[in-house]
Amino acid sequence: MVVVMASEADEADVQAVVTLVETAGGEAFVSRGVNRTIVGLVGDVEQFGALNLRGMRGVNDVVRISVPYKLVSRENHPHRSVVRVGGVPIGPDTMTLIAGPCAVESPEQTLQAAQMAQAAGATLLRGGAFKPRTSPYAFQGLGEKGLRILAEVREETGMPIVTEVVDANDVDLVASHADMLQVGTRNMQNFALLQAVGGAGRPVMLKRGFNATIEEWLMAAEYIAQRGNMDIVLCERGIRTFETATRNTLDISAVPVAQRLSHLPVIVDPSHSGGQRELVLPLTRAAIAIGADGVIIDVHPHPEAALCDGPQALVDGDLRELARTVRDLPPVVGRALTQA
Amino acid sequence: MVVVMASEADEADVQAVVTLVETAGGEAFVSRGVNRTIVGLVGDVEQFGALNLRGMRGVNDVVRISVPYKLVSRENHPHRSVVRVGGVPIGPDTMTLIAGPCAVESPEQTLQAAQMAQAAGATLLRGGAFKPRTSPYAFQGLGEKGLRILAEVREETGMPIVTEVVDANDVDLVASHADMLQVGTRNMQNFALLQAVGGAGRPVMLKRGFNATIEEWLMAAEYIAQRGNMDIVLCERGIRTFETATRNTLDISAVPVAQRLSHLPVIVDPSHSGGQRELVLPLTRAAIAIGADGVIIDVHPHPEAALCDGPQALVDGDLRELARTVRDLPPVVGRALTQA
Amino acid sequence: MVVVMASEADEADVQAVVTLVETAGGEAFVSRGVNRTIVGLVGDVEQFGALNLRGMRGVNDVVRISVPYKLVSRENHPHRSVVRVGGVPIGPDTMTLIAGPCAVESPEQTLQAAQMAQAAGATLLRGGAFKPRTSPYAFQGLGEKGLRILAEVREETGMPIVTEVVDANDVDLVASHADMLQVGTRNMQNFALLQAVGGAGRPVMLKRGFNATIEEWLMAAEYIAQRGNMDIVLCERGIRTFETATRNTLDISAVPVAQRLSHLPVIVDPSHSGGQRELVLPLTRAAIAIGADGVIIDVHPHPEAALCDGPQALVDGDLRELARTVRDLPPVVGRALTQA
Amino acid sequence: MVVVMASEADEADVQAVVTLVETAGGEAFVSRGVNRTIVGLVGDVEQFGALNLRGMRGVNDVVRISVPYKLVSRENHPHRSVVRVGGVPIGPDTMTLIAGPCAVESPEQTLQAAQMAQAAGATLLRGGAFKPRTSPYAFQGLGEKGLRILAEVREETGMPIVTEVVDANDVDLVASHADMLQVGTRNMQNFALLQAVGGAGRPVMLKRGFNATIEEWLMAAEYIAQRGNMDIVLCERGIRTFETATRNTLDISAVPVAQRLSHLPVIVDPSHSGGQRELVLPLTRAAIAIGADGVIIDVHPHPEAALCDGPQALVDGDLRELARTVRDLPPVVGRALTQA
Repeated sequence: MVVVMASEADEADVQAVVTLVETAGGEAFVSRGVNRTIVGLVGDVEQFGALNLRGMRGVNDVVRISVPYKLVSRENHPHRSVVRVGGVPIGPDTMTLIAGPCAVESPEQTLQAAQMAQAAGATLLRGGAFKPRTSPYAFQGLGEKGLRILAEVREETGMPIVTEVVDANDVDLVASHADMLQVGTRNMQNFALLQAVGGAGRPVMLKRGFNATIEEWLMAAEYIAQRGNMDIVLCERGIRTFETATRNTLDISAVPVAQRLSHLPVIVDPSHSGGQRELVLPLTRAAIAIGADGVIIDVHPHPEAALCDGPQALVDGDLRELARTVRDLPPVVGRALTQA
Repeated sequence: MVVVMASEADEADVQAVVTLVETAGGEAFVSRGVNRTIVGLVGDVEQFGALNLRGMRGVNDVVRISVPYKLVSRENHPHRSVVRVGGVPIGPDTMTLIAGPCAVESPEQTLQAAQMAQAAGATLLRGGAFKPRTSPYAFQGLGEKGLRILAEVREETGMPIVTEVVDANDVDLVASHADMLQVGTRNMQNFALLQAVGGAGRPVMLKRGFNATIEEWLMAAEYIAQRGNMDIVLCERGIRTFETATRNTLDISAVPVAQRLSHLPVIVDPSHSGGQRELVLPLTRAAIAIGADGVIIDVHPHPEAALCDGPQALVDGDLRELARTVRDLPPVVGRALTQA
Repeated sequence: MVVVMASEADEADVQAVVTLVETAGGEAFVSRGVNRTIVGLVGDVEQFGALNLRGMRGVNDVVRISVPYKLVSRENHPHRSVVRVGGVPIGPDTMTLIAGPCAVESPEQTLQAAQMAQAAGATLLRGGAFKPRTSPYAFQGLGEKGLRILAEVREETGMPIVTEVVDANDVDLVASHADMLQVGTRNMQNFALLQAVGGAGRPVMLKRGFNATIEEWLMAAEYIAQRGNMDIVLCERGIRTFETATRNTLDISAVPVAQRLSHLPVIVDPSHSGGQRELVLPLTRAAIAIGADGVIIDVHPHPEAALCDGPQALVDGDLRELARTVRDLPPVVGRALTQA
Repeated sequence: MVVVMASEADEADVQAVVTLVETAGGEAFVSRGVNRTIVGLVGDVEQFGALNLRGMRGVNDVVRISVPYKLVSRENHPHRSVVRVGGVPIGPDTMTLIAGPCAVESPEQTLQAAQMAQAAGATLLRGGAFKPRTSPYAFQGLGEKGLRILAEVREETGMPIVTEVVDANDVDLVASHADMLQVGTRNMQNFALLQAVGGAGRPVMLKRGFNATIEEWLMAAEYIAQRGNMDIVLCERGIRTFETATRNTLDISAVPVAQRLSHLPVIVDPSHSGGQRELVLPLTRAAIAIGADGVIIDVHPHPEAALCDGPQALVDGDLRELARTVRDLPPVVGRALTQA
């Protein structure tokens, strides 16, 4: 941390900063320039944060240097991690396809969607039983019944399942059925939920908040890691910008940036960011080419009748093209499609 | 709702839309232009939403016309509401000052802050016992102990208390001590929490998500209202934009816009949006002048030692100026400062 | 400027930075911490910028400390400036109302609008002869004919005129008729135009780019000031954000922030930011209360027939309310409405 | 265009809209629902725009349906265009690499950079002689001298040249040396410049404004096309968002979206959006995979000494990897690297 003194700060102001930092157990190094003095701090940054240095007389700015997350940082963990979900790896050497319906609607629909996904090369099944919806009047998911359907389809297909949990109270229930817990974009800073999934003994897929910086995303992962769970997969799914031609703006740069800052795997959701079927395949290609460790895609046997996000679900013809893409593109960037 | 057909759509495409809408119990009106056909829909919009009209052959766009919220809308409730918190009104004729420390740290600090607030004209006391923090390493609040401190300070000062709840599981506990429950910006779309406070029998202050549209904010209020609780106060606290000179950008226009769309009171938090002490008073003046029904402000007896957001807390000299402002400015816009 | 070395940087990396800075005529101060070394630079920041320190081995980050603008900065010019436009002051003690039609359409319309403006308390007349339009198919203004109409209306009413210039080639022409040159939001970084108005011998109103940070806005003003013209008035007119309920989001905080960073007057355009007539008066009140040095408002005798931005122009009843507002509100914040 | 009447609008309000539209030469179709009436308009949308329908009594909203650009739209020009620059094609079957230094600094540096670019597979040379800079104190380019250097390097290497023009007055000069004129992100809505390049008889590369919607970008292209110049290449270069980990956020989805809306070629600038050398290759891969018609990349023989944007210029090792990427990746998506 660096404290930048104002140009009008006097010696007493500088000394007050030094004394406060030393009292708090840190070290302070003073650099004097022609117009400004800078104080470099060494020690426990969190503790310095509590000192309110910025509020002291003569202080112009406080600049943080160390990253505020530790467990998920690559600084102390240089090798990129592999997370295993029911035996299926997500990590740096492979490209894992996760696919399935946005919402579980019935055993038939879910099984059909799973078989479509599997035929396209998917090794993990996604499907929502609890759906967070902006409108209280929209379909909210089948709940526990949906979880049982997913478990049956896992029996049938052998695909481990990924499903969202939206309430800290439901974590045990969902963890008893699912192979991986998903935390959705609107819950990325629901700290009670992050702590609950951190203690649930299941890998977690953490979607980036559509309003969250990459740093805040990694801080949210740190909440989970702090509870002892390091099996976290980060999922970029688009951020909110001024552009309205797409539902959200897929921040494709976030993939290499997050992979450089953190050892955790990073995957991409091309279905929810674009919100349009025509964009799913192009965005999938971009995600694989940039080095994503996986992609998660909506498929539905009858999108025109889907209870949730039908307009973005892939259908038959698209799926053959998806199968070709996930087979041919990863080798060009030094990866292989994850096999069951 | 209006369905806009693509220029290449044929008669069969149009008929398919009409048939589907009528099957779903709605009415469809077809308008044919030289290049385009438009189908106007009348009926239950939520049901049409489930039809995935946008995914049908020949459909170019679907434009929603009615607002998607009902209970909080001003369309069916033309008069602006007054919400009473422990007897203190928040509504169209008054300007209510809510003030107190960002976080409850000790009985002494809380009492002192409450007395400072009261001297400045505040009739409601704010103070956080449960603090949602971006970093898992930051101070998270005193929890239940903080609630008891707040209750004691209410005894001493007579000020009803407003405090945040961050977890659906804590709603009953917080409601047993507090006069008003606050839902914070990061929880605006925590639907489990919204439903829980909707059933808690206490007025709710709903902060706008820092990346939420005004429409999403009103939809979040609708979640609370649906559980039978109409005592909701909306609080604008700044949105996330590209500008970094301020912590967030106070969306001052949101006050008249939300007041036109909804009958609920709308207040402003000038402390958290700016994140700087120097901005609190100017933003307070802007909020009162534009017609906010109240403002909520951080005060702290010793901001330099505050465990949370010290740099934005008002101190002694500022408070005298605040007292003048809340006394002199409301009458110019046809309001009076709310009295105890 | 502070150079933050990476944790893996070695002594040679640090020395390379020091040597490069000293070769460039600067001073370098090295602060060593447990994990990181920081090098503080003193000297000509622009020159350091050209050194590409960020690209050197072992450098993690480069943090700028001094502000990058000088002539418009308040650091070297602590008193806030007054800019006079045809004798009418815009500055810290007054609140100046500038009003008139968005576009000059005819002598009658312009005179009527000017008389409406004057009756409401305006002392400067705005009106566009050259209009930058997003669509090449929209009305682009009357050009030189419009300038002559404005000059005639000035004769009739005694109001100095403010009008936009959109092309560096037109600066002399516009300056020969106008009392103040306006640079619009889309041209804030049209550097050729900035330099041209800097040499035109007329005060300049510089609108903030809807996509520009406050720092970039001040840098744009610096381009004008560098040509010897310090008679610059900054105009906040809303920024582009994700919110679509208003045309742009008025960044009301920018008023006190820009006034703290720069000595130049800062005014607000409440008409273009909101884009709706209902928002003009509320935003005007917020602007005056927060301490704007003026406001600039669209008025039109027949907004329903306006060729440009009719929906946001104030009409008769609104103007009486505007007159009351600009008379009664400034005194509450220690100012007086500027008189002719 | 659809006019949505307010729920309280009466028959006279509806008739007033119909009459006005018909008077203006359009057709109006009225659809009556239970709560709302909708009026569909057919005819010249630009003319309707001038009617200020939104300002009429009883009108709630006006929804535009047709796209506001015509010449660049794919609606009337279904096949995607090929633009030739000095004989080099940019279009749907190829992937064209444009590379060179951000700024022309000297004959040696420019020639070296051109040879590096050519070795990597580039067939067009980029290089800036006129540089728009946020700070008036930064290097502004060599101007005409830079253009002559570029022309000499074209002689030497055979590569046609692409260079930026920042002032309408310089268009003829730049066009007399360059094979393609570049309009930069800050000038995307400099309408005088757009019109000037539209008449210059050279292909134009139009960078997207970093805060422009895709629709505004296409409208800017329409300004150029209106002057008779259809040889326009669109260049996505990142938009401004709240994320600060990258200089801008590359809107990768804009590539397929713009290609669907317009027949013009769309290329990507991975150097300026990320602003970091480490991101250039990953973003290049994403751009090629999603179907960009080309990429434009900064290279510099000695980035540590570059006068402009050195930190993002590719150097030796990167260039071998770039060469592999532009050779191996296009065939996977059905394209071939453009050959000289």
